[in-house]
Amino acid sequence: MKSLVQDYIDGVYRDLTGERSGSVADYIPELAVVDPDSFAICLATSDGYVYEAGDSRKKFAIQSISKPFTYALALADRGLAAVATKVDVEPSGEPFNEISLDPVTERPRNPMINAGAITSASLVAGATVAERFERIRRFYSRFAGRELTLNESMFESEDRTGNRNRAIGYLLREYGILEEDPQTTLGVYFRQCSIEVDCRDLSLMAATLADSGVHPVSGDRVLDAGLNERVLSVMTTCGMYNAAGDWVTEVGLPAKSGVGGGILAVLPGQLGLAVFSPRLDEHGNSVRGVRSCRRISKDLELHFMHVSRAARSAVRASYDVIDRPSRRRRSPAEHDLLLRVGQRARIYELHGDLLFAGAESVVRKLTLDADELDVIVLDIRGVDETAAVTRTMMRTVRDWLRADGVEAVIVDPQSTVLELDPDPAKRLRHFGDLNEAVGYAEDVLLARHAGADAQARAIPIRDHPLLSGLPPEQLEAIVTRLVPHTYDAGDSVVRSGDPTQGLFLITAGPVEVSVELAGTRHHLSMFTAGTTFGVAYAVAGREYDVDATAQGEVAAMVLPAPAIAELTATAPDLMLTLMSRLVTGAFDHLDWVTRALVSPS
Amino acid sequence: MKSLVQDYIDGVYRDLTGERSGSVADYIPELAVVDPDSFAICLATSDGYVYEAGDSRKKFAIQSISKPFTYALALADRGLAAVATKVDVEPSGEPFNEISLDPVTERPRNPMINAGAITSASLVAGATVAERFERIRRFYSRFAGRELTLNESMFESEDRTGNRNRAIGYLLREYGILEEDPQTTLGVYFRQCSIEVDCRDLSLMAATLADSGVHPVSGDRVLDAGLNERVLSVMTTCGMYNAAGDWVTEVGLPAKSGVGGGILAVLPGQLGLAVFSPRLDEHGNSVRGVRSCRRISKDLELHFMHVSRAARSAVRASYDVIDRPSRRRRSPAEHDLLLRVGQRARIYELHGDLLFAGAESVVRKLTLDADELDVIVLDIRGVDETAAVTRTMMRTVRDWLRADGVEAVIVDPQSTVLELDPDPAKRLRHFGDLNEAVGYAEDVLLARHAGADAQARAIPIRDHPLLSGLPPEQLEAIVTRLVPHTYDAGDSVVRSGDPTQGLFLITAGPVEVSVELAGTRHHLSMFTAGTTFGVAYAVAGREYDVDATAQGEVAAMVLPAPAIAELTATAPDLMLTLMSRLVTGAFDHLDWVTRALVSPS
Repeated sequence: MKSLVQDYIDGVYRDLTGERSGSVADYIPELAVVDPDSFAICLATSDGYVYEAGDSRKKFAIQSISKPFTYALALADRGLAAVATKVDVEPSGEPFNEISLDPVTERPRNPMINAGAITSASLVAGATVAERFERIRRFYSRFAGRELTLNESMFESEDRTGNRNRAIGYLLREYGILEEDPQTTLGVYFRQCSIEVDCRDLSLMAATLADSGVHPVSGDRVLDAGLNERVLSVMTTCGMYNAAGDWVTEVGLPAKSGVGGGILAVLPGQLGLAVFSPRLDEHGNSVRGVRSCRRISKDLELHFMHVSRAARSAVRASYDVIDRPSRRRRSPAEHDLLLRVGQRARIYELHGDLLFAGAESVVRKLTLDADELDVIVLDIRGVDETAAVTRTMMRTVRDWLRADGVEAVIVDPQSTVLELDPDPAKRLRHFGDLNEAVGYAEDVLLARHAGADAQARAIPIRDHPLLSGLPPEQLEAIVTRLVPHTYDAGDSVVRSGDPTQGLFLITAGPVEVSVELAGTRHHLSMFTAGTTFGVAYAVAGREYDVDATAQGEVAAMVLPAPAIAELTATAPDLMLTLMSRLVTGAFDHLDWVTRALVSPS
Repeated sequence: MKSLVQDYIDGVYRDLTGERSGSVADYIPELAVVDPDSFAICLATSDGYVYEAGDSRKKFAIQSISKPFTYALALADRGLAAVATKVDVEPSGEPFNEISLDPVTERPRNPMINAGAITSASLVAGATVAERFERIRRFYSRFAGRELTLNESMFESEDRTGNRNRAIGYLLREYGILEEDPQTTLGVYFRQCSIEVDCRDLSLMAATLADSGVHPVSGDRVLDAGLNERVLSVMTTCGMYNAAGDWVTEVGLPAKSGVGGGILAVLPGQLGLAVFSPRLDEHGNSVRGVRSCRRISKDLELHFMHVSRAARSAVRASYDVIDRPSRRRRSPAEHDLLLRVGQRARIYELHGDLLFAGAESVVRKLTLDADELDVIVLDIRGVDETAAVTRTMMRTVRDWLRADGVEAVIVDPQSTVLELDPDPAKRLRHFGDLNEAVGYAEDVLLARHAGADAQARAIPIRDHPLLSGLPPEQLEAIVTRLVPHTYDAGDSVVRSGDPTQGLFLITAGPVEVSVELAGTRHHLSMFTAGTTFGVAYAVAGREYDVDATAQGEVAAMVLPAPAIAELTATAPDLMLTLMSRLVTGAFDHLDWVTRALVSPS
């Protein structure tokens, strides 16, 4: 099938090939030799896929697009504070090659004009020009994801004609901004400008900036996330020379252009865009580059101030365990108790980004509700993003809740979205499945509220729903054939692969039934006092294909398979009554489970 | 319980009250009369909740914070293009009250310096000063969500001392930027600067800008979303006078300050922040205001370039209907067929923001997979945001898929997240529930692949699993008592509230069973040829509490309730066999449904 985005990029490319205005930079002889009508557009996604149109593998000099990267390396080598004493971050409103410093601060206005960029080059670590340039070349290469190389003749051309930059260098030395011979710094700077890239490289360099400094293909952490943020901020206000304001309003992507004809633009968290076309406008930006970016940003709604609607509350839904009970089997007494106190266990379904604003809405709701609650179930399966501030906030609220006797648990199959504490002892209980978490919440309510009537959890065999109300002689016929079994917590009741033992009438529970699928154990259901377990296996004489385990002190009366056969032959009326009760119960339970599926989960 | 965010804001307030540097603006006498140590911080959320600390209800003059709002009104009144001919959007790098225009464009550099703001005031519609000012006052009031008023003595003070602004006005008139008597424009401008607000108002005005121009409490659409985006862009580069670059790198929120001591800052899509404290720094920004914003942005990670990790693929998971079958009852033949062709129906679980980058990842995956598919189920319940470009992209892919014979359906209970077409005839089929969509996808596969063996959907009564293999005399005893029923598509089979009709042995299906809960109809299950329906009702003699409807040409053989009673009395062995088969089938089905719950849904 065709590719939608490729078609789109091809369309933009086709529409703009006719654009021939502007002219190629010629203040460096080597720049003037390029084909003025070269044109390429590349869009790199956050998983490293690159859409390419035109001359996307044609090499050209990176020129000023090097500036944010060398600034980044200077920040990494020297730290934010040290770099800030040498170069400001204010938009200049002046041409990029102005031979002047800010009259008040006596520093270059920002690292995107030549004075600031030369200063950045002087701050990169390395004892010699060669060593420093090699660190720069390697650093750029990691952004691109391949080894970039120097164009020697471009460098020679730069070096031969770079008098304006030398003037800037000596001015910087005069004011003590450069702390070395300007010829040394310019040796590095001219080389960095002469590194060759293609449009595809630029799009991946942009995607790395978009990915908080991690290369989308290699996964290489090229730049610290905080420094990456700083570089993007400076590109936002100063990246497009003195057309920055217009660029921000019309395109709205942090960007950098170079006189080689390249433009690199970043949609943070999302994608990298690059265009190469050597004809420049009066600001020194590629004409087709600016037009392509403007068109693509508008069509694809990439403007960084574009918010299609306000963030919704991070709490998508909230309900209690009466609205949404677990699928555990409960005795009638437990069921009644849960109906009375079930509003004290609430499930909060969270979704979207849990950055500050989302976390604030969750925390506000939880602290409002907490006084009325024993248990909080946070279902965070729909959460996309969290931040450090989220974890700090949630940790504080967890401690408040604990102090108030409210237990919070988390539903999160990956157990990674919202790890609240490095200390395992302090962590919230995690569940892989909402039903298990709700069952646990119900158990907490039952434990807290059942109080003295805990004996409600055990029943005499004659009150078991399968037998209650039978005529005395039928009841005796059954009861005399029942074999008592007891189990301690953790004991196996039945094992997958074993033959059927008979019909289990549970008189004290609970028994958990689970199954192992593809190496993972899944909870299926919980059998408590008053339920009957193993019916289908006993009636059909089948091997178990599930495991049942006692979850506490369990008592069961078992009608063994031979007794079933005997009663079927000698007392078919009795067996028919039992089967009718079982079939009604099974279909009722089936109906109940099926209805549970249409309630929120 | 305490409030976490309130505690935090109170803490910032407390920490910064000791800060006494800077001095109150005194170039307008009325400004100098405020208490220099007033201090308030307010944070407004996107649902309109406001956290307030300090003198949050103390009134002060809005001053320059009026500039983005009047600029917004001028844009709304005249349109982007007309306003662009009068005022640029470039950062100026000069003091806000500079009496100069851009030497090249001969226009004010941007609407946040006085020259640009006075120009904006001249562009607001209205025949007289009073009428124009009243429109401005009402416009600001809608942003604040309450009626704002003019401080008359502030206005008189402005008017008396505003010679510098008059100089700017006459300069603008000289260059033809103002098209009216500058005294008229300044009559409006001085009044707009003298509107009184408090810190809480500013935070809600900021929250309205954050909410794409919709007031978070009233829901009033105050400003078009596109113009709102433009205003935020200009605030980003020009809002904080000539400290804009430093503000963008350190705080990273579009903002505007005023000499009255206010600062308003916006986190798009998330929240509005406001600080009031009259002592100003050398740029004219509130000292405590800048320090508060810097601290809050850092602590709460609000910087607009802050991305905690790269956008993940919008496709969270993808599986076929073999991995995740529907809970519809299928005949063995149907089941076998689905095992053979089930990989031709895939479910794609989407999540997060489906803006361009997310939509691109979905479209790339769908077009890659489509050749191997008959049906695509898009489960978009986890999608938070979509954009116009998303809908365009998805519409195109839908048309491509249709042309290739692939049917796409959508799971979206709200039916609003991704409405692809204004034309209902072209819309994709929507389902409120994943199980229903998967069942439909299976039906499409069965219809396409069952081919000539469509008769697999109907069975002779003697092959019905409940009866097959019975001894001839038992089989006859049943079959002679069965009553044939047939239904056309849409016919009611049983109705909630009706008495039981007996046991339905379905020989041609399907019959859909559903239930109405709280006004909404929910699908429970589907009965096809070979299944038995109505067991629990027939055995227990209960009224129906569900509805069953024929979904095609349905044939059933019904064992009426009196015949059940008769056979129970005369042939208990036979009934016991039937009940054993039913109970085994019910528990098998219960087991199957329960297991379905542990598979992805």
